[in-house]
Amino acid sequence: MNKNSSNTMALTPNTSNKRETVCIFGTGDFGRALGHKMIQSGYPVVYGSRSTQISNLIPKDAEVLGHAEAAQKAAIIIIAVQRQHYNFLIPLAEVLRGKVLVDISNNLKLNQYPESNAEYLAQLLPGSKVVKAFNTVSAWALQSGTLDASRQVFVCGDDVEAKQMVMDIVRSLGLTPLDKGSLLAAQEIENYPLQLFPMWKFPIFLSLGLTAFFFFYCLALDVIYTYIYENNNFSFFIAITIPNRVCPVMALVLLALVYLPGIFAAIIQLYRGTKYRRFPDWLDKWMLCRKQLGLIALAFASLHAVFTLVTPMRAFVSWRTSKGIISQALNNKTEPLDNTKAWLSDSYLALGILGFFLFVLLGITSLPSVSNSVNWREFRFVQSKLGYLALILCTAHTLVYGGKWFLSPSAYKWYLPNIYILSLIVPCAVLVVKFVLIFPCVDKPLTQIRQGWERNPKYSE
Amino acid sequence: MNKNSSNTMALTPNTSNKRETVCIFGTGDFGRALGHKMIQSGYPVVYGSRSTQISNLIPKDAEVLGHAEAAQKAAIIIIAVQRQHYNFLIPLAEVLRGKVLVDISNNLKLNQYPESNAEYLAQLLPGSKVVKAFNTVSAWALQSGTLDASRQVFVCGDDVEAKQMVMDIVRSLGLTPLDKGSLLAAQEIENYPLQLFPMWKFPIFLSLGLTAFFFFYCLALDVIYTYIYENNNFSFFIAITIPNRVCPVMALVLLALVYLPGIFAAIIQLYRGTKYRRFPDWLDKWMLCRKQLGLIALAFASLHAVFTLVTPMRAFVSWRTSKGIISQALNNKTEPLDNTKAWLSDSYLALGILGFFLFVLLGITSLPSVSNSVNWREFRFVQSKLGYLALILCTAHTLVYGGKWFLSPSAYKWYLPNIYILSLIVPCAVLVVKFVLIFPCVDKPLTQIRQGWERNPKYSE
Amino acid sequence: MNKNSSNTMALTPNTSNKRETVCIFGTGDFGRALGHKMIQSGYPVVYGSRSTQISNLIPKDAEVLGHAEAAQKAAIIIIAVQRQHYNFLIPLAEVLRGKVLVDISNNLKLNQYPESNAEYLAQLLPGSKVVKAFNTVSAWALQSGTLDASRQVFVCGDDVEAKQMVMDIVRSLGLTPLDKGSLLAAQEIENYPLQLFPMWKFPIFLSLGLTAFFFFYCLALDVIYTYIYENNNFSFFIAITIPNRVCPVMALVLLALVYLPGIFAAIIQLYRGTKYRRFPDWLDKWMLCRKQLGLIALAFASLHAVFTLVTPMRAFVSWRTSKGIISQALNNKTEPLDNTKAWLSDSYLALGILGFFLFVLLGITSLPSVSNSVNWREFRFVQSKLGYLALILCTAHTLVYGGKWFLSPSAYKWYLPNIYILSLIVPCAVLVVKFVLIFPCVDKPLTQIRQGWERNPKYSE
Repeated sequence: MNKNSSNTMALTPNTSNKRETVCIFGTGDFGRALGHKMIQSGYPVVYGSRSTQISNLIPKDAEVLGHAEAAQKAAIIIIAVQRQHYNFLIPLAEVLRGKVLVDISNNLKLNQYPESNAEYLAQLLPGSKVVKAFNTVSAWALQSGTLDASRQVFVCGDDVEAKQMVMDIVRSLGLTPLDKGSLLAAQEIENYPLQLFPMWKFPIFLSLGLTAFFFFYCLALDVIYTYIYENNNFSFFIAITIPNRVCPVMALVLLALVYLPGIFAAIIQLYRGTKYRRFPDWLDKWMLCRKQLGLIALAFASLHAVFTLVTPMRAFVSWRTSKGIISQALNNKTEPLDNTKAWLSDSYLALGILGFFLFVLLGITSLPSVSNSVNWREFRFVQSKLGYLALILCTAHTLVYGGKWFLSPSAYKWYLPNIYILSLIVPCAVLVVKFVLIFPCVDKPLTQIRQGWERNPKYSE
Repeated sequence: MNKNSSNTMALTPNTSNKRETVCIFGTGDFGRALGHKMIQSGYPVVYGSRSTQISNLIPKDAEVLGHAEAAQKAAIIIIAVQRQHYNFLIPLAEVLRGKVLVDISNNLKLNQYPESNAEYLAQLLPGSKVVKAFNTVSAWALQSGTLDASRQVFVCGDDVEAKQMVMDIVRSLGLTPLDKGSLLAAQEIENYPLQLFPMWKFPIFLSLGLTAFFFFYCLALDVIYTYIYENNNFSFFIAITIPNRVCPVMALVLLALVYLPGIFAAIIQLYRGTKYRRFPDWLDKWMLCRKQLGLIALAFASLHAVFTLVTPMRAFVSWRTSKGIISQALNNKTEPLDNTKAWLSDSYLALGILGFFLFVLLGITSLPSVSNSVNWREFRFVQSKLGYLALILCTAHTLVYGGKWFLSPSAYKWYLPNIYILSLIVPCAVLVVKFVLIFPCVDKPLTQIRQGWERNPKYSE
Repeated sequence: MNKNSSNTMALTPNTSNKRETVCIFGTGDFGRALGHKMIQSGYPVVYGSRSTQISNLIPKDAEVLGHAEAAQKAAIIIIAVQRQHYNFLIPLAEVLRGKVLVDISNNLKLNQYPESNAEYLAQLLPGSKVVKAFNTVSAWALQSGTLDASRQVFVCGDDVEAKQMVMDIVRSLGLTPLDKGSLLAAQEIENYPLQLFPMWKFPIFLSLGLTAFFFFYCLALDVIYTYIYENNNFSFFIAITIPNRVCPVMALVLLALVYLPGIFAAIIQLYRGTKYRRFPDWLDKWMLCRKQLGLIALAFASLHAVFTLVTPMRAFVSWRTSKGIISQALNNKTEPLDNTKAWLSDSYLALGILGFFLFVLLGITSLPSVSNSVNWREFRFVQSKLGYLALILCTAHTLVYGGKWFLSPSAYKWYLPNIYILSLIVPCAVLVVKFVLIFPCVDKPLTQIRQGWERNPKYSE
């Protein structure tokens, strides 16, 4: 290697001379965006197209040829056309034999076709090596270079070498390939970009519904009732006072709903005497969205914490405080320190802080990177032991806060209980049943059942 | 491919006809759970069992045969029996020759046997290709589908193709395979699910011990002393006041303990004049749990922050405030603004906030996904530079807070110093020694030693 | 395998007899540290060196030979010498033919040479298989075992089997290999450890500049002006009051700067009528650091939140409150509750809390592990929809807070506007233009352009 050639290399830092030509079938938006990006990364790109005229949208450095000619120039052909036009490839089967075909297509609906587009392509051209890739990347993101999220490109295919070649291209475009195995994974990969938080839908709708209910319940009791019967205009309660009643109630109820399905599952297994029958569908679905329920509960708990902490800064609260102090001053007397009140106020706050602290800990361990770095035993310890401890602390926090009002008739405006009484129903039920379940006489058969033992082996057939 | 067959495929979306038969030896709990899951994912499953009678627990769609017959039907055999029964496989050596054996076993204790179960299996059947997998997944999780954590399946094996086949199965069950290399990694993989936060044990016990000590120290000085000598019942201090004294002390001491071993290491290296001798064992262990110490310190600091923020909401505090204001009002005088007091109070709060802010930043960068995305230089910059800055700010925060009391005799009840004086010992020592270490005359030889230079080359032999 | 040999294995738990010999060329610091670690992991290590005398620094169990002899003993040779000495390898080309050469070198500057060290090595010895690895690990970390961060070892190379062998070594040293593809990735891998938050530089300098400007602006208006014209010494405002004015302003301005480049991009595309021309360079760079700008804005917002929450604990604030209450008490009158003031104060706080909550949510989704687990559609939803909602809430929070002062002449000391008025300029501009952009008559052509449509196809050439 002489000095000259080394100088030439200095001028072409991307060493593009090493990259193999890539062929792209289709000059649509994604095909063009991908071509742009590939040329930037040093790949010679040749487009295959029916007409070779519409060339001004196409990257300048790319060649445009007929399909067959373009395909002959490259070992890898990216199929940037829609599934319904895949038929035009059948006459090209001979040219495409042995080549790597990259299926980048997406559908408009989940599970639109019985088989995935990539599997369909593989059936049409059994002599080619089909690899699924790039469908999770958007043309716009590719073009503008703003790949903040989703640098991950899922790749699957039956031919290991073909997959390697595609994964190398993915890497050289600055993206991260993720091998998802054989072409059977294509359906899942094609469904992936169409999803919008599928696991979050039910928990979010449930939370919105419950929030609305509790909000109007509070509005009726705290604002409307006071306006009608006491002629006080407390409409500004809508901004902070009522949200700060609804948030803790939601947090507590949702946290209890995280642990309720586990209680149901245990009861069903005890009743059936086996673990080998499927749970009812609703229970299965409920169990699968426990993480989401817990995170929404955490969001409400955080809002409750902040709403509570700003209390001393509210104009209403400082007005109320001044009024109390001034009336004491004008009456010339100082109230002594009420020890019981100090104990209640402090223990109420301390229980809330510790419960919230454990809650945040649970939230942190459910971050993907943290939960991936703990084993099953550790995850169970945190989510089950610490989770129940958080539930106990939060329930105790609510009980200490509201304790004195349970029996006071003034708490029952319009004969309706205050919402923190409502909020205690589910958590207390969960805690009582869980307490029963950890008794040895109940826990022992349950553990046996979960280890595979059956009470009535016949039953399971 | 005619239309008919395409219709058939529509009815069997999992295209199970493509999956290869998998054989499972053993009809225990895990064998059955794995079989269930595999059938759901479209694998034909055949069980190998001594008796073919106990079939009602086994998934309905699975076949049950004798061991030899079952093994002949599949290329992959999952060994779902315990290590002590592996001997029964020796007579089957001929049938199993060339097949992929998947060892899924776990032990009851860490390092129970001299070699891992998978290596033992490979020794028993040298003609088969042994792959370790699935041991980190629980049967219960597999059965119930609630794989919140630990979708990761560690896989290791000496035969690359066998490993690929097993990793494909793992992927199609909806789990994430993680290649851990050759079969030598099996020991580590078998130990993994038995661990319960091994790195956290020492830091947690240390924190619990220190917390208990500081708690009773405060209890004696703040509650018992006051009760005996001043006849005030401040027992409610147990809920918030004392925790809010213990938490900041713990946070500061633990944060200093994170940086102390680095100081020791530097001194030892300077003294020895080489970096090529191992540190004493206690120092090695201490250095390895610095991250855990730091995170526990952060937990205490967060609790301190929240305990402090709820202060104005405490019944005791509002009683004390009213009392002060009323006594001023009754005496008809208003105190003027004390500028020094305002400066002290504000700078004390500001130092605490900035220190806590940096502390949280350190915590965020120690999340696995964040620390994986920074390089060594960046990690050092954050953990060392920003960490020391946080330590300086937190120490200054404590000094400003307690400054005026150091010399006041009333701070020494029972001749004991207040705990914030105790809390300052370690951080101040660390900061002073670190200050000495960054002097050029000390820093230069240290840097040389860390780059591999030796003062007395002979010494190292 | 007889019982004896199995006993022997029990005594050597690392089964070192299975590991293949590794050769290390060069006895410098990194070569020695790597050798130490490999011997600990059970690899026989042989050093290749010019002189075989300097052996007392070298791990005791390692052999030291001449280069050629050492190379013959191993299939893998680690080249632990600097690039400028690679020439000494040319005479050894025959011995090294077919061997795996691991290039572990780093440079002192980014892009120091036209081609990467590994590619240069591959050019020098075309008969060997060059693999790039280990350059991201520090010798000190390897030696001391404190590999908190950067357990990741980037590996690249053209020969797949050679790469596998190196990745197995990486794994057995307790590190995580990350396949980065072919040797073309070596340049990037060599640049990686030299970077110090390259994406953060501009956002951090911008923030520092703006912070300094706003700080001195506030200092002039709040401290100096008050001192000169009202003769009040409010110098302690420097600790909390002024930071708590600068932080929210910085948070709001930076958050608006996150969304401003998107607005510019849309306008440019609408004007040009195509998406196929590159944006100006400054816009490209700005778009690439939006995530960093947003995270810095979040940091300022968090500081603002904590600074605000400690308000009631400040000596100045409690002095001011007492003064107000005492003057009311002395005048024998109680002010009634001002409903408008209560509404303003509560809605101001509520808007701030909700805006901050969304802001934190945005921050969490930009954690690498979270953003990797959402797809493009979900990421866009969170970052765009929720992001704009956060901007709207935060702008409204500022407007409600400052509303009454806009027209008050006392807000214009020295004819300068208060800084929250300055802070509203950018966010309001962004929101107004965005509001125009979502009108159907503007949104429709923009969407078409982003899908690849062109107004003047000629224009793009």
